[in-house]
Amino acid sequence: MTGFSDPIVAAGVAGLPALYAAGVSPVDVTEAYLARIERLNPAINAVVELDPAGARIEARASAQRWAEGKPLSPIDGAPIAVKANIAVEGMAHTAGIKAYAGNVAPADAACVAQLRAAGAVILGTLNMHEAALGATNDNPFLGRCENPHRAGFTPGGSSGGSAAAVAAGLCAVALGTDTMGSVRLPSSYCGVVGYKPALGAIPTDGVTALSWTLDHVGVHARSVEDAALVARACGVEEGSETDEPPLAVLDLDDLVTLEPAVAASFTRTLDILTAAGWRLKRLRIDDLDLGALRRAGLLISEVEGGIEHRRALALDPEGFTPELRSLLAWGGRQTPARLAEAYRLLAESKRKILDTTMPYSGILTPTTPQRAFAFGAPIPASQADLTALGNVLGAPAFALPAGEADGLPLSLQVIGMTDGPTQTLAVRLARALAPAAVPETFR
Amino acid sequence: MTGFSDPIVAAGVAGLPALYAAGVSPVDVTEAYLARIERLNPAINAVVELDPAGARIEARASAQRWAEGKPLSPIDGAPIAVKANIAVEGMAHTAGIKAYAGNVAPADAACVAQLRAAGAVILGTLNMHEAALGATNDNPFLGRCENPHRAGFTPGGSSGGSAAAVAAGLCAVALGTDTMGSVRLPSSYCGVVGYKPALGAIPTDGVTALSWTLDHVGVHARSVEDAALVARACGVEEGSETDEPPLAVLDLDDLVTLEPAVAASFTRTLDILTAAGWRLKRLRIDDLDLGALRRAGLLISEVEGGIEHRRALALDPEGFTPELRSLLAWGGRQTPARLAEAYRLLAESKRKILDTTMPYSGILTPTTPQRAFAFGAPIPASQADLTALGNVLGAPAFALPAGEADGLPLSLQVIGMTDGPTQTLAVRLARALAPAAVPETFR
Repeated sequence: MTGFSDPIVAAGVAGLPALYAAGVSPVDVTEAYLARIERLNPAINAVVELDPAGARIEARASAQRWAEGKPLSPIDGAPIAVKANIAVEGMAHTAGIKAYAGNVAPADAACVAQLRAAGAVILGTLNMHEAALGATNDNPFLGRCENPHRAGFTPGGSSGGSAAAVAAGLCAVALGTDTMGSVRLPSSYCGVVGYKPALGAIPTDGVTALSWTLDHVGVHARSVEDAALVARACGVEEGSETDEPPLAVLDLDDLVTLEPAVAASFTRTLDILTAAGWRLKRLRIDDLDLGALRRAGLLISEVEGGIEHRRALALDPEGFTPELRSLLAWGGRQTPARLAEAYRLLAESKRKILDTTMPYSGILTPTTPQRAFAFGAPIPASQADLTALGNVLGAPAFALPAGEADGLPLSLQVIGMTDGPTQTLAVRLARALAPAAVPETFR
Repeated sequence: MTGFSDPIVAAGVAGLPALYAAGVSPVDVTEAYLARIERLNPAINAVVELDPAGARIEARASAQRWAEGKPLSPIDGAPIAVKANIAVEGMAHTAGIKAYAGNVAPADAACVAQLRAAGAVILGTLNMHEAALGATNDNPFLGRCENPHRAGFTPGGSSGGSAAAVAAGLCAVALGTDTMGSVRLPSSYCGVVGYKPALGAIPTDGVTALSWTLDHVGVHARSVEDAALVARACGVEEGSETDEPPLAVLDLDDLVTLEPAVAASFTRTLDILTAAGWRLKRLRIDDLDLGALRRAGLLISEVEGGIEHRRALALDPEGFTPELRSLLAWGGRQTPARLAEAYRLLAESKRKILDTTMPYSGILTPTTPQRAFAFGAPIPASQADLTALGNVLGAPAFALPAGEADGLPLSLQVIGMTDGPTQTLAVRLARALAPAAVPETFR
């Protein structure tokens, strides 16, 4: 995402050291974001709790370290906000659920502690879809989060506040969580980079679980570079450099229906990549049923999420919306055989995809089959069908901004296939693809 | 296992080419095993269906290949029998369940096809515990399989027929399946080598599932060499040679109670290994609850096994014993939350063990906490607690004969920790440990 006239916002994370060298201090950076939040957040409602005092203390400490030439890491001083299901010591840890309104986190989540150890400035917590189980961020407890590109439109979810905050320049980067696409989907709708590192690469300790089978912590950023830097600070390891085999382009014909603007943009992106010399192979995966996979992931989330919230559901059922209560109850009513079949479908689909994609460096798809839609409009069932592939595989996956159509962002997904738990090749692919992802006519 | 006066039985698999060179033909080898089966099987009841005509045809073809100097593999001509839950074309594929009595396999299981492609002679199918869900092999449909070491004693299970057949010299090696220990447990009770390669290393296509999450195909043999050769023929890959880090000896103090003879034998084995220069480290794994792990594995098997047998259960409930029906029904009555917690416990225990054992080449334990017991005696609940670790980890694991006490076999388990899906280090460890596993006083 470019186009911010404020050099501090334009610098993201990776550009901050150059600003520091030019005399801007980490204190200025934090003040700039706090001022933007004050000015812009009321209309967007991405930030739900702010810690200006704490942020200022951390920014001053960072300024001191840079002045002494002893930054803790390349991200020292970067202002970061985190999704409300990630524990930040002393702040409400609600996962967007009213029942947890008074639940103040006694300690930082592991990923937040790692960010602090790297010198990051934690600004506060961000809006999200209730319990991370849904993708509109139409949250009656925290209030709707608006898409910065168009008022009255969903930012997507469940990490809608994270994507919106980054898109609006309310923080340098944001953490989100991603069970079937909850980092990449709102990144697609808000036109920012969404990065879900490999399963377990960022620890989930201190994160309210939706599904311990599928949950990932991820990063929303305005550049691939920023996302990779922050993921690294959160513990994602670099892998070894390898040759770059061809990219696989998933044949979506029988898998999912794309909105015409998304289909056109994706085709143009592929044309641009081919013209630029990329080796692209169209790939069919037999007997892959994205709808069945989505229903399996949803059932697993409803059952595992139901366990996570069991106590609160019993003590304060009214602290959950009727919609969420009904989803969790539905999961609890299924037979164990049905759940076992869901886990099996995930494992077998993963094996099938890995067998088919063995020789490829990555899989390319649009991130979402459609662009953001208005609050109140019918919710497309297939929203997360393409992102969920990344969770089933447990592989690193990026959503990359790919221009706009009628003012609403488009997005390209790349899933890295050869990194294992590391990130080297996926980041390299995303970095190389990012500029090519924007079809000329949409730039 | 040594002590067979018949040179053909003593040759196992690895010794056969030397016999061929000395003028013995694969036809002689097959005839020797067929004769032993005729003489010894009635008292043991390990072999449940025999294909003498097919075996003789395959043996003649093998003889022809060796005569032409063109064997298909090092195991060409080796007579092998397989557990009754593994499909052999044209033979009854029952998984030890009466309901499947008329179920003739239309094709070989993948592992059997691989063995045939390697030139193996398939003798027939072997007794097993009904549905592979249990470890006494007291099967009312196929009849009890006896422990060759003592009449009236269980050979263990569920692959009791496989272990007994190998112990009695009714075949060169046998295939079995192992969900929580079903290859290694009867190998322990029958005093043979039991080898479960890594999860998925031998394909399970054509094998009646008990649990697709935990099922492994494995090999029973009279030497580590034979087991490794046959696993290789079934598709297990060799890995890269690596340095041998120290072995971990699992501290069993709060985990399981060992029968005194097993405890004494294990201690002597460790003493012998230490004296021989092995680097052994005693290892505590905090919060590991083998009983809870066993119950989780059992629940998963009951639910997944219930799915596998759903149709037959509906059509012919009387074709299942009341015991098996009740186990499968119990699984079906649990809440999905309980099942989700079981899968979670498996995944978390695996991570915990891997974190703790990271720097070790293998884990040593006794294979079973006790020796074989009489049919009708109370069944020790902890029988499979130590073997199940290998299934939870998905790592290659061996049961190695470790002498006898009062005529009943003892066994040492080694779980390979650094092989991934391959077998190089685990086999090297097993080969090196096998002679040392037998404490002097028991030899």
